[in-house]
Formats: sequence, structure tokens, C-alpha cells
Amino acid sequence: MKPLKVALAMSDGVAERIFPAARLARLGPELELISATPLSTFTAPHVAAVLAETDALITGWGCPPLTADVLDMAPKLRFALHAAGSVKEHVTDEVWRRGIAVSTAAEANAIPVAEYTLAMILLANKKVLQLQTALKAGRGAVDFDALFPGLGNYGQTIGIIGASKVGRALIGMLRPFAFNVLVADPYLSGEEAAKLGVTAVDLDQLLAASDVVSLHAPNLPQTHHLIDERALALIRPGATFINTSRGALVDQDALVRRLQRGDLFAILDVTTPDRLAADHPLYELPNVILTPHVAGSLGVELERLGATALDEARRAARGEPLLYRLDPSALAWTA
Amino acid sequence: MKPLKVALAMSDGVAERIFPAARLARLGPELELISATPLSTFTAPHVAAVLAETDALITGWGCPPLTADVLDMAPKLRFALHAAGSVKEHVTDEVWRRGIAVSTAAEANAIPVAEYTLAMILLANKKVLQLQTALKAGRGAVDFDALFPGLGNYGQTIGIIGASKVGRALIGMLRPFAFNVLVADPYLSGEEAAKLGVTAVDLDQLLAASDVVSLHAPNLPQTHHLIDERALALIRPGATFINTSRGALVDQDALVRRLQRGDLFAILDVTTPDRLAADHPLYELPNVILTPHVAGSLGVELERLGATALDEARRAARGEPLLYRLDPSALAWTA
Repeated sequence: MKPLKVALAMSDGVAERIFPAARLARLGPELELISATPLSTFTAPHVAAVLAETDALITGWGCPPLTADVLDMAPKLRFALHAAGSVKEHVTDEVWRRGIAVSTAAEANAIPVAEYTLAMILLANKKVLQLQTALKAGRGAVDFDALFPGLGNYGQTIGIIGASKVGRALIGMLRPFAFNVLVADPYLSGEEAAKLGVTAVDLDQLLAASDVVSLHAPNLPQTHHLIDERALALIRPGATFINTSRGALVDQDALVRRLQRGDLFAILDVTTPDRLAADHPLYELPNVILTPHVAGSLGVELERLGATALDEARRAARGEPLLYRLDPSALAWTA
Repeated sequence: MKPLKVALAMSDGVAERIFPAARLARLGPELELISATPLSTFTAPHVAAVLAETDALITGWGCPPLTADVLDMAPKLRFALHAAGSVKEHVTDEVWRRGIAVSTAAEANAIPVAEYTLAMILLANKKVLQLQTALKAGRGAVDFDALFPGLGNYGQTIGIIGASKVGRALIGMLRPFAFNVLVADPYLSGEEAAKLGVTAVDLDQLLAASDVVSLHAPNLPQTHHLIDERALALIRPGATFINTSRGALVDQDALVRRLQRGDLFAILDVTTPDRLAADHPLYELPNVILTPHVAGSLGVELERLGATALDEARRAARGEPLLYRLDPSALAWTA
């Protein structure tokens, strides 16, 4: 087998974060890295010589747009394999027009968000973090049955808004547990829901029936304030609302008002704006867990993105289909 | 099929907690409940008439000992199916001698503990709860890379001390995630470890290699202070220690000293004593999550215990082997 000739294109500093030390030095027989230094621009003098040889470009954050001029320098280029989520910044129409296969690590990127959400669901149904606070405040026995009647994870109903990549990763992770999983997504058929082992419902049904409501819809004009005052009023007393998607999907002032009533819990990894003013009520409400937009890939989790792109390149080298090939027609309804 | 005649034996108030409303009223064709009122003593006048008919006793917390006198009143009794963990309080030698099949809901009881631990592991590797505290304290951007270099859940090493019921439930739950799982248990062979998809190591290796160390050994004289000053010194800086088993397995003073150094995180659901003095340092240490012994079955999770015992009774009625039948010789090395 002739090795696939690979080049990297991303901002300076990205490659060290998505490839652990020595990963690029031991690529195996399927891949040949043309240059150890990633291309952070396509205009420098040495770029043309690299692109002239490149079969597959592994792109990352900050990859400049793959314009017609750039692609003209890369006559052998057949694959643009992205080691991050969205390809909208660098994949131009010209890439699709030339039939270059594009793949993304968006599914790998979804895993940490689903992991964060799973952990929070398991703690939320049992009110574990609230019991921690009660213990610290009271320093004695905590009467959990009196504080939170019916707490626990057995047979609870989890409502997932959006059968997105994160939503589907979460559905998979919830499968081993004794939950009843509802999903609201206008594009999810009852048949596909059954295959996933969940029940497709509409948003209002989901909000009214769930012990945990978790938001995984894309941030699009039509999902702006999807969770508004009316929707929030439907969530049952004692339930938990989790947002790891984007702040814009929620009417945050309405959420604060519902939280101030004290009968809803919230776990918010995203807000509007991302950095709240120092006196914002979400910092103080005792029924809110607020984290600084950390559910996505961070730290060592970035290595999964690099590993995903390299695995795609190896599939390409072996002549196998890509696992995460993008269909340009699908880009309209994803983030 | 002739239905199996079933009676309940447990303290007053237990049945309502382990059977949701109406569960006992709709047992299906396989089971016939002799009396809706559970036996909380075996000396009351009506007991003899119930026991005379009983094929299977579903026992729960507070079931009085099944002595020879009690068993003499129950000549048809073939099954003692426990809707809780330990059978040591009510199953006497006489039960084993008469060949009565005993089963337990200990595996069902292990699930919530494993769920709590899984959730805490996923948050611990990513330092999510620490980042929450940092956000609340600083009310601005949180530089997670500077605070916790290498945070995240990808490829981390999880060390499980004890291939107990909880340990094994946790191993199963960790399988979908990108972890390297080590298990230290003197009774676990390398072959069995391979079947479980984990690596068997000795305790010292586990402590030195793990990003999270989670304790799931039974509380026995030989495990008293299993985690002592020497063991604690082996755990790597930045790692997390989780205890959901019993306080007695840990030298708590040594743990406090290691935590005061600030380079270890701890998640403690159990302590010595279970209720700490109000001025105990574990309440104040910022690197400790302390919860009031809530990892086990609570609230709606108690219903899993009742459901497990009823499922065993249905297997008995159909002539199938019990799923959780106890071997009396195994009782010596379990809690």
C-alpha cells in the first residue's frame, strides 16, 4: 500500500493540543506527513510545495478558507478531514464543487458534552449536589426524604430536546440506565425514535412529562428562545433543566424568573452573554449549577479530535469509506 | 401454571417504600399474594395461617430471623427472596440446612452506588465542580488550562479497588467511555479481569497510576484502614479519591492531612463517624465534595429492590433458576 500523503492546516498552537506528544511521529505505514509544521496560512512561500503533494489535508481550528486559488495549488487533494466540529469557516463551495471528501470530528466533539450531561442527570435526579449543600449548611443528619420526596434515578423520565449529535450521543449513554427517554425533534420520526429506544414526543409533552429536560438543539434563527416563558412554565415542579447548547436558545430572563420561584433546578454551562455581569442572579440562585462553558472538548479531550481525523485519514489510505463524511446538503440545518 | 403463593416479611413501613402504589395489586398470573399486610413479626396470632401456605417469602429490612420455629410453621417454603442487600440478619443456618433457595437484591442495590460514582468520575476528571466554584468566586473568565492542566475525560485511568458488586456494576458502566480501567482485588484473576475488559493490578500500582481512585471493597476486619497514610502518599498529585463504601476502610486523619496539602481531590459519601462533628475539616476543605451517605438506594430507587425480588419470585413460579441466588459459602467474604 502506498501511504497517503498528509498535511496539516490550522492555527499555530493547535496541533500541540490535538495531537499528544509523539503521535505525529508514529503515524504508522498508512500515512506520510509531508511537513511536521502545520500550515497556518496558504500564502507563505513554502506552501505551494507542500500542497502540490498533498492527498489529504487534516484541518483544525483557524484553517484559512480553502478557496479556488488554494485548491489550484493542490491538484492531488481528495480529502479534507477536520479535527474539530464545524467546517463552515474553511470549506468553501469550491471544495464541494471539486468533489473533495470532507469529514468532521463533530461526533467526537459531541462526546464530552454528552458525558457532562449524563453525569449531571445522574446527580440531578438524586439531588446529590443539593444534598451536599444541605450537609455543609446543617452539619448534621440530612433528611433527604423530607427535602426531596421521590428523589433517585430509577424509572425517571429524561427529556432530550434535539436529536442532534450531542442528543444522540447522550441517548446512547443513557441506554444502560433505568430511564424513560423522551425526545422532541421535528426531524425525528417515530420509527427512528423506536430504533434509538426512545419515544418521540412534541416539545410541550416533553416539558410537561420530564424529570430532567436537557437542551441539545442547534443554535439557529428558528431555535432562538425556543425555551421561552411559556415553555418554562410547562416544566414540572422539582424538575431540572440542563443547557449545554447555547444561551440564545433560552429566554434567560424568563428562566431566572422561574428559578426564583424555587421549584426548578438548573444546570447551565452556557448563558447569554457567555460571561455574565458580576451581579447576575444566576451566580447567586441556590438552585443553579453554573459552569463556565466547559462541557465541550477541553484539555486532553482535544486529543480525541486529532485521533478522529487521523483515523479518517487511515480509512482513506485503505480505500475504506470515511466514517464521518459530510453531505453538503445537510449543512443548512446544523450549527 | 399454578401461581406461587407469596408472603411479605419486613418492618412496618418498608413495603410502601419498595413497592410503588398498586404494584402489589397487579402481580400478574404467576404470583398470588397471601396477605396484603406484610409480616413484621413471626409471633402474632395470624402468622401461622399465612406461613402454612407460603411457597416464597419476600423479605425486606427488619425481617425477623427465620429460625427453626418459624420455618416449622412454613412447611411449603422453598424461596426466601430478599428485597434488600444483606441477608445476614434474617437468614439463619437453619434456612440453608433446609435447602431453601435464598436470593438477594444486592446487585440492584449496587446500581445507584455505581451511578453516583460514574457521575462523579466524569465530573472529577474534568474538574467540573471545581470550575463551578472558580466561576462563582471570580465571576469572569475561568482559565481552566491554567488551573487544571490536562483536565478532561479522554484516555484517563480509573482505578477501582474491589471487584465487588458495586465495583463490577461500575466496570460495566465505564465500558462505553474512553477510559483505561485498573482493578485491584486479591480475588480477581488476570483472566477474569480480561473478560471484564479491565487490567488487574496490585493496590500500589493502582494508586500510583490512576487519575481517579474509587473504593469499592467490603468492610471487613482485613480491609480496616486499607487506605492508610502510606497508600494515600502513592496517589498522584491532581488525582481524585472517591469513597462510597465505608469510612472504616480509610485512615481519615491521614486523608485529611493529604487533602490539606491541596494536591488531591476527594469525593466522600461516607466518613468515620457517618455524622462528622460540626467543626470537622472535611466540611471546609475546598478540594472535598462531601455528601451525606446517599450513594446507595434512596427514594424511588428502593422500588428497584422490590421489583428485583418480585422478578425472582416470577422466575421461581416459572421453574426458572433464580438470577441472584446466594451461595452460603460466599457469605464469609461479602459485607
